[in-house]
Amino acid sequence: MRILGIDPGYARLGWGLIDGETYIACGVIETKKSLPEEKRLGLLFDQLKQLIGQYKPEVVAVEKLFFFKNQITVIPVAQSRGLALLAAAQADLPVFSYTPPQIKMAVSGYGRADKSQVQSMVKAILKLKALPQPDDAADALAVALTHSFSRKLYTKL
Amino acid sequence: MRILGIDPGYARLGWGLIDGETYIACGVIETKKSLPEEKRLGLLFDQLKQLIGQYKPEVVAVEKLFFFKNQITVIPVAQSRGLALLAAAQADLPVFSYTPPQIKMAVSGYGRADKSQVQSMVKAILKLKALPQPDDAADALAVALTHSFSRKLYTKL
Repeated sequence: MRILGIDPGYARLGWGLIDGETYIACGVIETKKSLPEEKRLGLLFDQLKQLIGQYKPEVVAVEKLFFFKNQITVIPVAQSRGLALLAAAQADLPVFSYTPPQIKMAVSGYGRADKSQVQSMVKAILKLKALPQPDDAADALAVALTHSFSRKLYTKL
Repeated sequence: MRILGIDPGYARLGWGLIDGETYIACGVIETKKSLPEEKRLGLLFDQLKQLIGQYKPEVVAVEKLFFFKNQITVIPVAQSRGLALLAAAQADLPVFSYTPPQIKMAVSGYGRADKSQVQSMVKAILKLKALPQPDDAADALAVALTHSFSRKLYTKL
């Protein structure tokens, strides 16, 4: 089961692809700050579609936004999340959403784990030689792993 | 200058089309609550693209989200706003954003006007026989009018 994990973001959107618990690829999509908002979203969307076309995931797992200290910050992140869901819908891929505590719990066994703990666990689970970089790519792999683990749980029921 | 105004929303997205200060059309896009989030966004986006294809606006004016009492509410609205910006970008249309106080000020001369005052002013300015319904469609026409007025101001400078 090829899972594309997405950590939504505007300046930088993290993505990570796994097959079961095997690492395939990860990275970030960045767009130029000098461009108008709609052009940046257009480029972000094109790159998401390109990723889906290239790696052919069977399912998309996306971080769910459920609490932000700063509500101004959440708006551009939610806009990008909308585009990620749309890219999945246009490719007829099912989408699963997980909150940050669900992701931390699934990956590290602790719902309040910090970024570096999550990164280390992602590295260990996927048997990577180095920490996945940057954080956004590691977070995206963590979302993908969360779906992989949840799927197993459901299958066992 | 054909202006498409958009009042972003998830359950209901308002749109309104004007040419200068002449009313052309308005309405809302609604999607079924029973569908998964990504499918609803997919349908919303298809309808936005269809609107743009049908009415061929030259510019898109979108309400800017800048303050929400409830930050949970802002997330789906921002996701829809991202789709509206993307639809504009894919049609190569320039996008202008206006905050609710800017819209209220432009349309009613009072930045803290309530919904019904804005609706009444939209009706009066566009010489409509009835109040534009529902609120979301009236709000979208108000955004479009805000751009029409701002454009005049800039042209005068």
